[in-house]
Amino acid sequence: MDTKRVQNNPITAFGDHVLRGVGQVVFQNNPITGLIILGALFFNSWIYGAICLLGAIVATLTARALRADDGLIADGLFGFNGALVGLALVAFTSADFRTGSVPSVHMFIYIVFAAAMTSIAFATIGALLQPYKVAALTMPFVLVGWLFLFAVLKFANIEAGPLAKPVSPDQYAPVVTYVLPTWYMGIGNAIGQIFFQDNWISGYLIVLGIAVNSRISAGMALLGAALAAAVAAVFGGPEGAIRDGLFGYNAALTAIALGGFFLVLTWQSALYTLFGIVVTTWLWASVAIFLKPIGMPVLTSTFVLVTWLMLIGANGFKVLIPVLPSAATTPEDNRRRLLPPIANRGIARSTTG
Amino acid sequence: MDTKRVQNNPITAFGDHVLRGVGQVVFQNNPITGLIILGALFFNSWIYGAICLLGAIVATLTARALRADDGLIADGLFGFNGALVGLALVAFTSADFRTGSVPSVHMFIYIVFAAAMTSIAFATIGALLQPYKVAALTMPFVLVGWLFLFAVLKFANIEAGPLAKPVSPDQYAPVVTYVLPTWYMGIGNAIGQIFFQDNWISGYLIVLGIAVNSRISAGMALLGAALAAAVAAVFGGPEGAIRDGLFGYNAALTAIALGGFFLVLTWQSALYTLFGIVVTTWLWASVAIFLKPIGMPVLTSTFVLVTWLMLIGANGFKVLIPVLPSAATTPEDNRRRLLPPIANRGIARSTTG
Amino acid sequence: MDTKRVQNNPITAFGDHVLRGVGQVVFQNNPITGLIILGALFFNSWIYGAICLLGAIVATLTARALRADDGLIADGLFGFNGALVGLALVAFTSADFRTGSVPSVHMFIYIVFAAAMTSIAFATIGALLQPYKVAALTMPFVLVGWLFLFAVLKFANIEAGPLAKPVSPDQYAPVVTYVLPTWYMGIGNAIGQIFFQDNWISGYLIVLGIAVNSRISAGMALLGAALAAAVAAVFGGPEGAIRDGLFGYNAALTAIALGGFFLVLTWQSALYTLFGIVVTTWLWASVAIFLKPIGMPVLTSTFVLVTWLMLIGANGFKVLIPVLPSAATTPEDNRRRLLPPIANRGIARSTTG
Repeated sequence: MDTKRVQNNPITAFGDHVLRGVGQVVFQNNPITGLIILGALFFNSWIYGAICLLGAIVATLTARALRADDGLIADGLFGFNGALVGLALVAFTSADFRTGSVPSVHMFIYIVFAAAMTSIAFATIGALLQPYKVAALTMPFVLVGWLFLFAVLKFANIEAGPLAKPVSPDQYAPVVTYVLPTWYMGIGNAIGQIFFQDNWISGYLIVLGIAVNSRISAGMALLGAALAAAVAAVFGGPEGAIRDGLFGYNAALTAIALGGFFLVLTWQSALYTLFGIVVTTWLWASVAIFLKPIGMPVLTSTFVLVTWLMLIGANGFKVLIPVLPSAATTPEDNRRRLLPPIANRGIARSTTG
Repeated sequence: MDTKRVQNNPITAFGDHVLRGVGQVVFQNNPITGLIILGALFFNSWIYGAICLLGAIVATLTARALRADDGLIADGLFGFNGALVGLALVAFTSADFRTGSVPSVHMFIYIVFAAAMTSIAFATIGALLQPYKVAALTMPFVLVGWLFLFAVLKFANIEAGPLAKPVSPDQYAPVVTYVLPTWYMGIGNAIGQIFFQDNWISGYLIVLGIAVNSRISAGMALLGAALAAAVAAVFGGPEGAIRDGLFGYNAALTAIALGGFFLVLTWQSALYTLFGIVVTTWLWASVAIFLKPIGMPVLTSTFVLVTWLMLIGANGFKVLIPVLPSAATTPEDNRRRLLPPIANRGIARSTTG
Repeated sequence: MDTKRVQNNPITAFGDHVLRGVGQVVFQNNPITGLIILGALFFNSWIYGAICLLGAIVATLTARALRADDGLIADGLFGFNGALVGLALVAFTSADFRTGSVPSVHMFIYIVFAAAMTSIAFATIGALLQPYKVAALTMPFVLVGWLFLFAVLKFANIEAGPLAKPVSPDQYAPVVTYVLPTWYMGIGNAIGQIFFQDNWISGYLIVLGIAVNSRISAGMALLGAALAAAVAAVFGGPEGAIRDGLFGYNAALTAIALGGFFLVLTWQSALYTLFGIVVTTWLWASVAIFLKPIGMPVLTSTFVLVTWLMLIGANGFKVLIPVLPSAATTPEDNRRRLLPPIANRGIARSTTG
């Protein structure tokens, strides 16, 4: 299917941009991926499916109203932070984290403002990072999400239950032993948690959606989630947190980002990615503990932190071949375009970074 | 009155720069505005009036001793953060927040160092922001204020009472109903709180001082304070916090900054400003909660955060016409110089950003 | 001794780079300094000596494996953050802070990853700061140290005792009076604490190591530690914290950095340095209080914060002569190369900044 034609057709364009926005959460600039992910959310809860769509629509419309760059809008880059912030606000203010609750009128207004704010934050963080040749990642969502979540608990007209979901590893019983479901549920849940879905089947459906656009990215997502679970187990992380996918959702995103998307996939960058997955797993616990006094969830902050730390300096490491955010497409395509011929490898450096 | 002549006359120049420094807290490069604001402070408490003057003098002298840029000094840009940090240190270490206490010798030395430090921080934050074409705003004050306030409680030779003033909305009784004084006192107090004045009449005197230099800025200050009070009420914020102007002082500053000063005033930028006021109101509560575990006041951090978020990316939004900090004078003058002729509006983009 | 020849000889080069890495903690690009400092650590505890060496080796090897800039590696700039992070992880997870404990296998792996991560963080923070002409200082260590320390307490397979060492001034009894050992032990301990050595004799040995390369830097280290102790005493800081060198280790680093290394030493920059020492002393308490809710130590964050604040804006102050990080050698050499002839002083500005 020629998705470019849909993207540029004025009638279908807006729907296409919104679906790409959903796909961009996991770096997939592909409306089919977005559609499958939406399906995975509706499979778990129609409320989350609808909120995800709402967030992406509001953020994309905001960017259009402000006359932001048309290319960025068409690639769904204004939508994905809006989708995530909508999901987060519903997930952490609902009595039942798993299915979410329909928001009140006050909460609805609040979500619309938050989603709109992510588009402004995306432009600002993009401008701040422009000299450093890295992408804003999900930082607009993390920043706006934290700021709007902090405040929500203080307004009497927004009914917010206590955070129904554990947000830190020490909220789990430490004695439970690891069993088979720890692993297959933990890996699926880790992918699901990227979209706040506490549903391991939804997680695997999302992997399927990624695979439609890039098999390497889909494999990286699984590798990130699996290695995170293994590292957490070796270091004695609580079984419940591993099974719920909490150690893995940031690691899965780090794996996709470093594993071929922003660095051309070579055996050196593969090792670098494995290092990044291990560090992300540990540091998820770290950020969780840092945020505990104020009762805030980690969101995807650890992924953003580790990926920025490992990409901004990457231009100084001659074994790696960084890909400019504007030039990053899929790991497969990056390799085809940017990997130097075998004869030159290790001698000539790519000029893309 | 030709204030330029006073600014350049070597005899009167220093006093002029200090008074402009007081005015620059609310973006008014005008010594008369500074004088009226000083009057409003003395009307509430001679201690605050004197401390404000002291802070502005020390910071301006520091900049001169370090041979900083003469133009910035003459425009009062080194003075305003010093004035604010002096006021904050007295306000939050006095038994009576409303009138303040005369500082001890140790405290006096401490304030002088803090005010001097704001001039260094102003140069540094200005250098950091230079590529992004936004101003340091009150960030030097917020940063130095927090750092010096954290430490003050730990030195036995500085007598610091407990923070006498509530700094977070949940310190107020939530059941009180809104009455008429909630509104007119709340709006006045919000303007007053910019200078730590818990006095609504002082607040309206400050608005008068702003109006001498720019009626649009004066109107924006009132609009910001009023809309903040309304938003807080709709979302069920506590009456006491609204009446004390706590939801409004950051919003009033955001309104002045976005409403014509750093963005040419058009109907689009007016809508953008309204959005910014609403978000600032909510996020004040957010930052207050974030800072609660360490017992720190919000100061004007929310204004700085929201204004930076909404200005740094603004060059990417073609419906807005950003004004360079060095070119920003008053909303009226910005419009006259930078608004394209009606025939071209929406077609040609201003080249000032 | 011609250290340049050792640095470039392929057989001795690696050892040279690692020793320079140890020296770079206190800004001394000299392997003899590194060797004496290592001796000072072994004098206190062979465990700390070995861990310091391990951290510097791992970080330097990581930089080589990633093919980072050869000049930076040869100057030991990749090693010093690795050395510090190893020391910090052992110091804060050992039952006895003074001697440290031999790490477990899990902890050993963790330290190796942390030291490797500092090399990546060094490249990234260097890239972020490149437009602002300041060095990364010990920020890679502070950042990676905090992140890895936060997480360590949450993994059952890493035995971590409670933080055995007070990390905030309010953990000391406030009534003890100052005596002679408060001063000579306090100054020595402050230098020792830079390397987590609670041993005042080790501290003076480190000063000796610095003096081999630069007498001005050695003098500045002593001045910073002594003035910090005096300021803390005047403002009523607890005796135990002064004697343990807690107020002084950040101030000593600030003194070395501003006192001739990154600013050419003149009477104006000497005053500027004194100001920086006083502010660092106060703000150490400030950061300690900020971090207390999460139980984290200050590390050298205050030194980094104050030095950045005072250097990034320094290009705007015409009384100061900043030295580019890549051009900074020793205070003595900086003066010889960059101080304008007396006839021109105050007229011509150095063009080095």
